[in-house]
Amino acid sequence: MITTDDVRAAAQRLEGRVRRTPVIQAADNLWFKLEQTQHAGSFKTRGMVNQILAAPSVPPAGIVAASGGNAGLAAAYAARELGITAEIYVPTTAPAVKVAKLGKLGARVVQVGDEYAEAYAAAVVAARSSGALFCHAYDDPSMVAGNGTLGLELLDQIPSGFDTVLVAVGGGGLIAGVIAALPGVRVVSVEPVTSQALHAALAAGGPVNVPVSGVAADSLGARRVGEIAYDMAVFASTPSALVEDQAIVDARRRLWDDYRLAVEHGTAAAYAALTSGAYRPAEGERVVVLICGANTNPADLA
Amino acid sequence: MITTDDVRAAAQRLEGRVRRTPVIQAADNLWFKLEQTQHAGSFKTRGMVNQILAAPSVPPAGIVAASGGNAGLAAAYAARELGITAEIYVPTTAPAVKVAKLGKLGARVVQVGDEYAEAYAAAVVAARSSGALFCHAYDDPSMVAGNGTLGLELLDQIPSGFDTVLVAVGGGGLIAGVIAALPGVRVVSVEPVTSQALHAALAAGGPVNVPVSGVAADSLGARRVGEIAYDMAVFASTPSALVEDQAIVDARRRLWDDYRLAVEHGTAAAYAALTSGAYRPAEGERVVVLICGANTNPADLA
Ligand SMILES: Cc1ncc(COP(=O)(O)O)c(C=O)c1O
Ligand SMILES: Cc1ncc(COP(=O)(O)O)c(C=O)c1O
Repeated sequence: MITTDDVRAAAQRLEGRVRRTPVIQAADNLWFKLEQTQHAGSFKTRGMVNQILAAPSVPPAGIVAASGGNAGLAAAYAARELGITAEIYVPTTAPAVKVAKLGKLGARVVQVGDEYAEAYAAAVVAARSSGALFCHAYDDPSMVAGNGTLGLELLDQIPSGFDTVLVAVGGGGLIAGVIAALPGVRVVSVEPVTSQALHAALAAGGPVNVPVSGVAADSLGARRVGEIAYDMAVFASTPSALVEDQAIVDARRRLWDDYRLAVEHGTAAAYAALTSGAYRPAEGERVVVLICGANTNPADLA
Repeated sequence: MITTDDVRAAAQRLEGRVRRTPVIQAADNLWFKLEQTQHAGSFKTRGMVNQILAAPSVPPAGIVAASGGNAGLAAAYAARELGITAEIYVPTTAPAVKVAKLGKLGARVVQVGDEYAEAYAAAVVAARSSGALFCHAYDDPSMVAGNGTLGLELLDQIPSGFDTVLVAVGGGGLIAGVIAALPGVRVVSVEPVTSQALHAALAAGGPVNVPVSGVAADSLGARRVGEIAYDMAVFASTPSALVEDQAIVDARRRLWDDYRLAVEHGTAAAYAALTSGAYRPAEGERVVVLICGANTNPADLA
């Protein structure tokens, strides 16, 4: 379990190293937290910088992470800013543009296996043999506490208060952090119908493997939710909403049309819970939607 | 001349009708005001709503405006929200997608002439004959005062204070409003080398016609700066910076790469003044860049 104090400690460590991302009031009882404006394009940078700074020491071999998505970008960015080496493992199927982005951030990219799971396994082995610090994409206490710092900012940024935060869930590192940061606030899990690792875990009484597919799979498609996230969600009696792929596509388009926010599908999932009615706030309920990342190709918003 | 009191009066009129757009701190002495998240995608909505609300009465014929760009969208949006009719004049050369957007907002679109100037002339005549309220895209006191309300918000949003605001200039309705809102602040005019109506006016001692072209011409390509803007700029000894098209393209790309802000070229011009060195802040100078619109096709940010 991660506590509010853990998140506060992370916020101190991150001071001056991550952006305090802005909030826009979208309607009387609706706010968006624009975390896609974070360094490297997502909240994962908070968690990754915190993982590195919270480690007792950074080994000469630097850090290792496994991810072709936001976690990999965040790890590469964090390592560059902190002046250490990063090795990022991605499957051989990772698109060339993602590999190039990681390289541009100065990371060494290692392509192994056909699937994320294989790249992950290879990364763990590599870290063990080189002594590098393995940075998990979600299921790590410092990752969770770092992510949670955006929740603390909300308390300042919405002085009139809020009741509910809608959070898109993949491996659960974000929602676990937000739950820790905001005791007493209703934190709602939103997952695509097509990749519902937390929903399935809550139904099964513990993390289980799930099939993943759909438009948001590149960011929300964790095959198994993290232990930390599962425990925090049970502790907080986290409500779980599921959204269809079409609702995600529509919500992403609306964020562009109505607010000129270009976001990735994983991010739009949180808003889709509102627009599709998968989550229906009560009369007067004050809701925050986390706009969590924009590592997207904006071409299809044309 | 428009005064701070005029802007304050506009802010009262606009209360609850326009969005208070967020600010992000980009560096120690650098902030972006994210006005592209305004209704209809630009600050022009502030000015247009104010023009209508400040009129003694709205005639049964509603409003008329001439613009295929942000001003037209803002006029159509404002009219729809206020429940009145809008007729928007655009040249026959206006892209079908812009005409469709205006229509979607409920405006009647009239296509006249090959050039903006012809559509403008036809709009003036039409308003005179129907009795409709003609809403100018920039050179109107209420337009200017309405636009200036974003300047007042900055005072709240950056409590530590700021020295300078960089503003992209077309017809000058935005910069005039910002000058009025922020006495004592250095408000810098930024124009593309390829369309420098204010720069030329300052050199000539009064508004003159200029040739316009370049990547930002659709939003900044006014052939002649407004009288109000010229007077305000002379009054405030407004510094004028010019930026090359390539610098605008580069700045637009950087806003996406570094902040996931998808903006139009006209908006990127203001940031380009910094990134290209056309405006060089002094040591410790605290600078705000207005991110003013995003009626852009984001496809080329892919
Ligand atoms: C933009 C975005 N939102 C949400 C998530 C989900 O975060 P988590 O895996 O911590 O649940 C991710 C994960 O990559 C993401 O990239
Ligand atoms: C995005 C954007 N920025 C700046 C301007 C310039 O505003 P003004 O014409 O008031 O100088 C415009 C004008 O259309 C615009 O659309």
